[in-house]
Amino acid sequence: MTVTRQDIELAAERIAGRIRRTPVLQVLPTLTFKLELLQHVGSFKPRGAFNRLLAAKEEGALSGQGVVAASGGNAGLAVAYAARELGVPARIFVPETAPAAKIARLRTLDADVMQVGSEYAEAYAAAVVACEESDALLVHAYDQPEIVAGQGTLGLELEEQLAGFDTVLVAVGGGGLIGGIATAVGDQARVVGVEPELAPTLHRAIEAGQPVDVQVGGIAADSLGARRLGSLAYQAVVAQGVQSLLVDEDAIIAARQELWQDYRLAVEHGGATAHAALLSGAYRPEPEERVVVVLCGANTTPSDLT
Amino acid sequence: MTVTRQDIELAAERIAGRIRRTPVLQVLPTLTFKLELLQHVGSFKPRGAFNRLLAAKEEGALSGQGVVAASGGNAGLAVAYAARELGVPARIFVPETAPAAKIARLRTLDADVMQVGSEYAEAYAAAVVACEESDALLVHAYDQPEIVAGQGTLGLELEEQLAGFDTVLVAVGGGGLIGGIATAVGDQARVVGVEPELAPTLHRAIEAGQPVDVQVGGIAADSLGARRLGSLAYQAVVAQGVQSLLVDEDAIIAARQELWQDYRLAVEHGGATAHAALLSGAYRPEPEERVVVVLCGANTTPSDLT
Repeated sequence: MTVTRQDIELAAERIAGRIRRTPVLQVLPTLTFKLELLQHVGSFKPRGAFNRLLAAKEEGALSGQGVVAASGGNAGLAVAYAARELGVPARIFVPETAPAAKIARLRTLDADVMQVGSEYAEAYAAAVVACEESDALLVHAYDQPEIVAGQGTLGLELEEQLAGFDTVLVAVGGGGLIGGIATAVGDQARVVGVEPELAPTLHRAIEAGQPVDVQVGGIAADSLGARRLGSLAYQAVVAQGVQSLLVDEDAIIAARQELWQDYRLAVEHGGATAHAALLSGAYRPEPEERVVVVLCGANTTPSDLT
Repeated sequence: MTVTRQDIELAAERIAGRIRRTPVLQVLPTLTFKLELLQHVGSFKPRGAFNRLLAAKEEGALSGQGVVAASGGNAGLAVAYAARELGVPARIFVPETAPAAKIARLRTLDADVMQVGSEYAEAYAAAVVACEESDALLVHAYDQPEIVAGQGTLGLELEEQLAGFDTVLVAVGGGGLIGGIATAVGDQARVVGVEPELAPTLHRAIEAGQPVDVQVGGIAADSLGARRLGSLAYQAVVAQGVQSLLVDEDAIIAARQELWQDYRLAVEHGGATAHAALLSGAYRPEPEERVVVVLCGANTTPSDLT
């Protein structure tokens, strides 16, 4: 199963009016930020969540049992938000170790939060069982076709918003976003995946020739800490020749600080990771190269910004 | 002396490439935010500062003595930034009571910070004397034609960025921004000034039939705490029939919190004041009325947002 540009165009029609068309900020003649941090619930994730739920609804597969997901982070927030907007219940499975603040925020979105096990894998397993035992719809954090296609709508927006661009820098966790963007615009632009050295799922997948389990940690792990690149993302990045770059923790911290100091954008560490590749010199554009940096999330505690 | 729409069009040409064309975010079919908080140095003020400096440069009135301003806030930052970009020195006068953080930030912009007196009026008087004793250019925080015209370029941008709009909500301190916006778009849209109850310079000026000194205080006083509406702003708001609304402290705090919680926009209290009019019901648009809220500044400590 692969995701096509047509799937993404369909997704864009499907989710129109449900998501924010996030603006772009041109910061230099050759550099533009895509302000996806301003999306509903603070990250790009509602694009995929709405596409998954609405596609299921079209097929009659969205029942009164609602939806199930496993995530204490941005994906969980997005599923809870999309479910509430569409009037179906959401059960979100998180580990017992999930921070109280994240659980509280899920509950403000009317989600039923289920705390299971000591780590994500156990919560995910419980979510799968819950779906098997009911008519609820499982929403994966990144590795379902509707999720990847939904995230790819960000690429279509860039085409509409910009006169042209050569390169897109995108942070990578499980790969839903970069898989979608590469499929959307990879024929016309260079798509570069940027990851923390401590969470290199794309990098290791390219090295190994397939997605492999990776030890993940570091400062951006709350949003980029998937253990393994999604198989759909892997197919897309290979098909489009996506490049992979790593940045260290200091580069991510510096990029996040600079985005606040110079632009008053309060992003999460994962949301600063793509910009870190530019600031640190890990990615060095040609003089006339038109670069887009996707600022993909802002679910951060901003108290350490000043 | 009055400011005209033509002055604003000239200002837009003059400052093009120096300021950021800040994006708009459509949040509802009838509601758009103008994200001016993303402007250089975190507020709309560089629009006017660049216009003042570049107009003086055209007339040969920008000497090696540079520029002088009195402000420990957004206006001072903007003058320091514009001067540095144009390669002239900036002397910024602030009261001896100015917070160390503000002085430090001015110095990072290479400004020469002069601490004089215990309040703003004394710093301002010293700035005027400094200009009289040298060839330096005085840059007022709001009441000079080039300043008002520069701030008005925000209105021209709205015309270009939006298919149409009925109403613009703008926070008011000294009135440079609302004076410029009213002159730019007042013929085609309703312009509404929003002020804290504790800093009602526009409100009192309209009541009195002229600008009058006002006691100012409250949570937004760091950005909206001018004591008296500018005379140029007064002429503009009267000519365009600008409405004046007041909001209380709780409404400003709630609006600032909502902008972070729902949009991940970290604004200063003054930057949230226009939005407070909508949230509190002080301004109630008609069902189809297309409203623009100008989010005009983000020089805030974001630590209290979560």
